Amino acid sequence: MNHADVGTFLLAFASALIGAKLLGELAERFGQPAVLGELLAGVVLGPSVLGLVPLSEGVFLLSEIGVLLLLFHVGLETDLAELVRVGAPAMAVALVGMVLPFAGGWAVARAMGSENLTAVFVGASLTATSIGITARVLSELGALKTREGQIVLGAAVADDVLGLIVLAIVSRVAEGGSVDIGAAVRSGGLAIGFLIGAIAVGIPLGRLLVRAVGKAGVRGVLVSSSVSFALLAAWAAMKAESAPIIGAFAAGLALARTNRRHDIDTALQPVVDIFGPLFFVYVGAQVDVGLLNPASAANRPALWLGLALTAVGFAGKFAAGFCAWGGVRRAFIGAGMVPRGEVGLIFAAIGLATKALPEREFLAVLLAVFATTFVTPPLLKTLRPKAR
Amino acid sequence: MNHADVGTFLLAFASALIGAKLLGELAERFGQPAVLGELLAGVVLGPSVLGLVPLSEGVFLLSEIGVLLLLFHVGLETDLAELVRVGAPAMAVALVGMVLPFAGGWAVARAMGSENLTAVFVGASLTATSIGITARVLSELGALKTREGQIVLGAAVADDVLGLIVLAIVSRVAEGGSVDIGAAVRSGGLAIGFLIGAIAVGIPLGRLLVRAVGKAGVRGVLVSSSVSFALLAAWAAMKAESAPIIGAFAAGLALARTNRRHDIDTALQPVVDIFGPLFFVYVGAQVDVGLLNPASAANRPALWLGLALTAVGFAGKFAAGFCAWGGVRRAFIGAGMVPRGEVGLIFAAIGLATKALPEREFLAVLLAVFATTFVTPPLLKTLRPKAR
Repeated sequence: MNHADVGTFLLAFASALIGAKLLGELAERFGQPAVLGELLAGVVLGPSVLGLVPLSEGVFLLSEIGVLLLLFHVGLETDLAELVRVGAPAMAVALVGMVLPFAGGWAVARAMGSENLTAVFVGASLTATSIGITARVLSELGALKTREGQIVLGAAVADDVLGLIVLAIVSRVAEGGSVDIGAAVRSGGLAIGFLIGAIAVGIPLGRLLVRAVGKAGVRGVLVSSSVSFALLAAWAAMKAESAPIIGAFAAGLALARTNRRHDIDTALQPVVDIFGPLFFVYVGAQVDVGLLNPASAANRPALWLGLALTAVGFAGKFAAGFCAWGGVRRAFIGAGMVPRGEVGLIFAAIGLATKALPEREFLAVLLAVFATTFVTPPLLKTLRPKAR
Repeated sequence: MNHADVGTFLLAFASALIGAKLLGELAERFGQPAVLGELLAGVVLGPSVLGLVPLSEGVFLLSEIGVLLLLFHVGLETDLAELVRVGAPAMAVALVGMVLPFAGGWAVARAMGSENLTAVFVGASLTATSIGITARVLSELGALKTREGQIVLGAAVADDVLGLIVLAIVSRVAEGGSVDIGAAVRSGGLAIGFLIGAIAVGIPLGRLLVRAVGKAGVRGVLVSSSVSFALLAAWAAMKAESAPIIGAFAAGLALARTNRRHDIDTALQPVVDIFGPLFFVYVGAQVDVGLLNPASAANRPALWLGLALTAVGFAGKFAAGFCAWGGVRRAFIGAGMVPRGEVGLIFAAIGLATKALPEREFLAVLLAVFATTFVTPPLLKTLRPKAR
């Protein structure tokens, strides 16, 4: 890695942080969650406008660290018992919230002239909620520990796990194979097994860790051991064909049950404040502003399809919120499920690579992923339940 | 960047953190500074032993973030007025500490059969002290704010700046050019001018920043603004042909003069605890254990030369400490100047690339850089002045 690359990286890191805080502050002054400002900062700083934050390997890794630490922190602030208590409504929200956008996306794509395989891919890429966006907005609104917040979080984790199973099936189909029920069941079992196993093993391991750390005298050992615990869990999740953020979240859940929860939480806060926004800036930086210009005739087919996909993607998740029960504010839950993110982008990238998604459908999926993401922070802010 | 690369990166990050804390703790139990354990953890985890921490771009960038945050933190804990007060003895230590190792390295290389240009390169690569190692050990020993600590810090900053000037001259010579006094003076003026300018501009800018941040309501804005201030200063330093750590250090010096110094310091501590050790692990990971085996005849020429260079490199810096005055413990100052690091490794890499350093001399320089680094922590611990 040469001198100039290091310079570019430092400038990207610095401008992402500054942009995130400036536009985050501005968003708050307009009564919006700061994360909306961070996403917009990414758009402005990204390759399609100012070009200060490139989509390079270094910036990507920073954003990965950011989202892992964020989900670890969210796990640390989550009560596992409460999450289990809302398990049934969360599962209902997750399942309906996958089926409706899938069906809607498929139907819209078919109606607008896509082939069947392409339409399947389009529908699948609308199934998974972005835990990162959702968790961050809930945390900003102080709604993470409400019953609504727990249902959204549980459902988002569930559909991220389920989304990976759908991905395994659909990408096999796209590569020209047939649907292999055995492989899908295995992959699903592995992902669910990992989550349960990680929590079951993580809780005693976390206690062991905290006890061992209590005997150590070296500086900063609690926070750095906790972070390495989360990183190892993220790595293990990838090995189990699950998503790294699921591992980091499970690690947080496990350490939340130790007596050092509060100390870890406090020490982690500035680290999350620095690295968390980089993830949202990176998401924003992936938006290509040029393709959003409706004045260019070349953009219009993708824009129309994207608009339609945004509509069904939004409606499907929002409706799913009304499957929840237990005296909760269901519109808030529906809104919390709306943002797509990482998994949708991965679907789109695989679709493009395997040619299952032609250019128009690829761009439309990207548009729907970003539109649902940008619309969620203000929506959640408006719909949030009153504090009890 | 594919799936497997992210997994490798996460595993490297986690194992570097765990290894650093485990061996750091072990080092402390043996009465040694933790940083010695972190360096050894790097050797064990690096490519030449376990291979868990590769010398990849991602790991390198993490280690860069680590050393920048570390130097920023050190700057934040340094009193600029005190640093200026010890300016004269620090400059004396820096200059003598460059001349003696240069002369010694040149003489040893000539005596052991190197050509003249090669010997010049060998001598030059022994001139610059590693601020990172020195600052960390001083901080661990609680000696950063002693008069001795300030002299070492000032001298290390000075010889890092001067070392870059020597680098500019020597690499021009290595590329077949002649010594261009004008260019050397310009490059020197630029580096020194940057340091003075960064502090002069940084102090009012830092106050402005702290005042603006005081009015902002968004979460974590103080720590993230401070870090972006340091990153921008590091980037500016590179643009001014200086080293990024000099910029980060100057940013720390500037923010130390604001009324939020303590808050920034507290919030930064866990961030430095997580990322700082990664730098030392990365330094250790660059050691190729295989080349240290004296049983292999192929290794012996480089080992002998390396041993001799370590001896003159050590003696030159140690002797320079005795140029300090003002009722200080001069052996401690000399020992603090001993570790080489980044700049020495950069010299070696350029020497290899331009063929100014043949294989034997290249390996010998690496050996001397690492040997002086590993010997310093225990030595400083032994020689540290009593608390007053």
